[in-house]
Amino acid sequence: MDVIAAANARAAALPPGAPAILRMEVGQPGTGAPRGAAEAAARALLAGEPMGYTEAFGRRSLRERLVLHYAQRYGCPVAPGRIAVTVGASGAFPLAFLAAFDPGDTVAMAAPYYPPYANILTALGMRPQVLPCDAYTRFQPTVAMLERLDPRPAGLIVASPCNPAGTMLRPEELRAIALWCHQNGVRLISDEIYHGLSYGMEEATAAAFSESAVVVNSFSKYFSMTGWRIGWMVLPEDLVRPVECLAQNMFISAPHVSQVAAEAAFDCTAELDANRDAYARNRAALLGALPTLGFRRIAEADGAFYLWCDVSNLTNDSVTFCAEMLAQAGIAATPGVDFDPDRGHSFLRFSYCGPEAALREAPDRLARWLADRAPAG
Amino acid sequence: MDVIAAANARAAALPPGAPAILRMEVGQPGTGAPRGAAEAAARALLAGEPMGYTEAFGRRSLRERLVLHYAQRYGCPVAPGRIAVTVGASGAFPLAFLAAFDPGDTVAMAAPYYPPYANILTALGMRPQVLPCDAYTRFQPTVAMLERLDPRPAGLIVASPCNPAGTMLRPEELRAIALWCHQNGVRLISDEIYHGLSYGMEEATAAAFSESAVVVNSFSKYFSMTGWRIGWMVLPEDLVRPVECLAQNMFISAPHVSQVAAEAAFDCTAELDANRDAYARNRAALLGALPTLGFRRIAEADGAFYLWCDVSNLTNDSVTFCAEMLAQAGIAATPGVDFDPDRGHSFLRFSYCGPEAALREAPDRLARWLADRAPAG
Repeated sequence: MDVIAAANARAAALPPGAPAILRMEVGQPGTGAPRGAAEAAARALLAGEPMGYTEAFGRRSLRERLVLHYAQRYGCPVAPGRIAVTVGASGAFPLAFLAAFDPGDTVAMAAPYYPPYANILTALGMRPQVLPCDAYTRFQPTVAMLERLDPRPAGLIVASPCNPAGTMLRPEELRAIALWCHQNGVRLISDEIYHGLSYGMEEATAAAFSESAVVVNSFSKYFSMTGWRIGWMVLPEDLVRPVECLAQNMFISAPHVSQVAAEAAFDCTAELDANRDAYARNRAALLGALPTLGFRRIAEADGAFYLWCDVSNLTNDSVTFCAEMLAQAGIAATPGVDFDPDRGHSFLRFSYCGPEAALREAPDRLARWLADRAPAG
Repeated sequence: MDVIAAANARAAALPPGAPAILRMEVGQPGTGAPRGAAEAAARALLAGEPMGYTEAFGRRSLRERLVLHYAQRYGCPVAPGRIAVTVGASGAFPLAFLAAFDPGDTVAMAAPYYPPYANILTALGMRPQVLPCDAYTRFQPTVAMLERLDPRPAGLIVASPCNPAGTMLRPEELRAIALWCHQNGVRLISDEIYHGLSYGMEEATAAAFSESAVVVNSFSKYFSMTGWRIGWMVLPEDLVRPVECLAQNMFISAPHVSQVAAEAAFDCTAELDANRDAYARNRAALLGALPTLGFRRIAEADGAFYLWCDVSNLTNDSVTFCAEMLAQAGIAATPGVDFDPDRGHSFLRFSYCGPEAALREAPDRLARWLADRAPAG
């Protein structure tokens, strides 16, 4: 958030005619909702649909569409009663954590990680336990790491593709982790919000491997509907009623108009796949250029729209490095400490979900800046 | 929720031509968003506005409109930085509670009360403390009650108008409570979501009386925008940053399209005041008829759209009484135990926010049913 604010401030202070700031720090698509989704919402509004509360778990038709999605996409049967439509994935996590864990419980996650996992757990009195991960396991946890945890944590959060590394668990890896968690009484929370945005590796859902896992997903990334605040969970049977009670009290329901738009978004795959194809081109261009500029160690960017770069050959202070890159090269990126307080000083995250034309300028700008820059240290 | 489900089931099972169920159990306006608000949202969508995340506390223009609202409506200056737009009032309470209280803290509230206060506090590890209130204080807490609390609670929730009783604190009563809380280090949470729906008594905001109080409000009631999930808080300075951090993690932002609609809703007062005038007519008709039917003890219904009836002369089991009223008279109402587990067996709540024409049938149906009914007991 501070990085975004700094980039905004920099952009606002630019003299007329100066090249725009390249926004490679943002975590949301530059595109809006697909046209068909926005129009479905507008039609419903102009028709005077009252848009009252829905059931706590969402409109029946949207939940059935999600059941169909699991059948078609993953070949995974899910009972409609296990689907909970939520106020984004952000709104899903507090519900899942409160239903699955008790205060004082420890919940493990790989580092680097999406900061709200730890922040929400801490706010709710639970204890995040970080598993330091690196390129050897593609910044993902393994069963061997879990086996070494003594005592066992109450839960494990995995994300595939993950933020910030963009790496994925292979289906058999996710399966092994899901089974280990189930057998060891560790509640698996599988963050699948970047599904639909991957570039070759097969996507698998934890719902296919475990009856006890909680799956969290969102319309914010592939479906490009961030500000609509709409996501969903696939819940294990034993958490359905506890989550429903919590949701009734803490949310009542997800936004009605967003539910209408989300259902229509399933019919907008041509537009959404075109967005993904643009990400794929951005990714390929950056993966081609960055290593020649000195960004030589980049996590295997299987999915999402991030590159997680080990910049220890360029700096040992990624906060200052990013600040200088913004000030001098006009490129905003996120220092790694935001995602890994212990080791992130030698990492940064580039996001490539911005406009293709703008991102095409990144390599030249970086090359000029690095050439002008004093040697590292 | 169970009452709504029972009424839905009953409505679905009605034979063709049977009189419809009179829905006097619901807590949301039968009207949708005002026309101008829905159209503003539709216009923005059709114009292709991207509807990404907003700042965590909401669009600048909406926050400024809310500042103007406090100036015009209450003569109360509020700095824009203290306004947080939230995912409804429901989404505001967890943020306020987490920022203001610690696990184990006690938070007092009058009974009868809106059940999510206690449910959310409990889910977050805090302890609700119920202050039994009755008609002598219009079901509202008093400074004298607070003085008797030993030890002092960490917080106090007040609601004026309140749900379920529909009663209000007079401005000088709210002022006295706010000052007492401020002087005694008790964090006041003032639920003002029914402001705009009152029938003669002056509405006052706690923001005018206390710099330490948290004000919670919503676009769901007067503005008739329930399913849009949009509300706001006026925060004390010391909670601005803690709530912002929590909101960034747990919500990111309130729904963007709802923020657009909410801002436009401020220009729809003619339509919204007409809704309120219909509630006022419903209220007057029921307050005229119910006492003649045996509902003789009704809380002073200053605001909201509820009547809280002491039915101890008719039953000592309001759950069964309501179930029979639904089955035999086709009128759904909410048994008091939902709002006051200890004393609610002799109370029920009628809601009068439904359509005027339908509600006009209520007295005759109740009269016929009560005449046919076996004597109480």
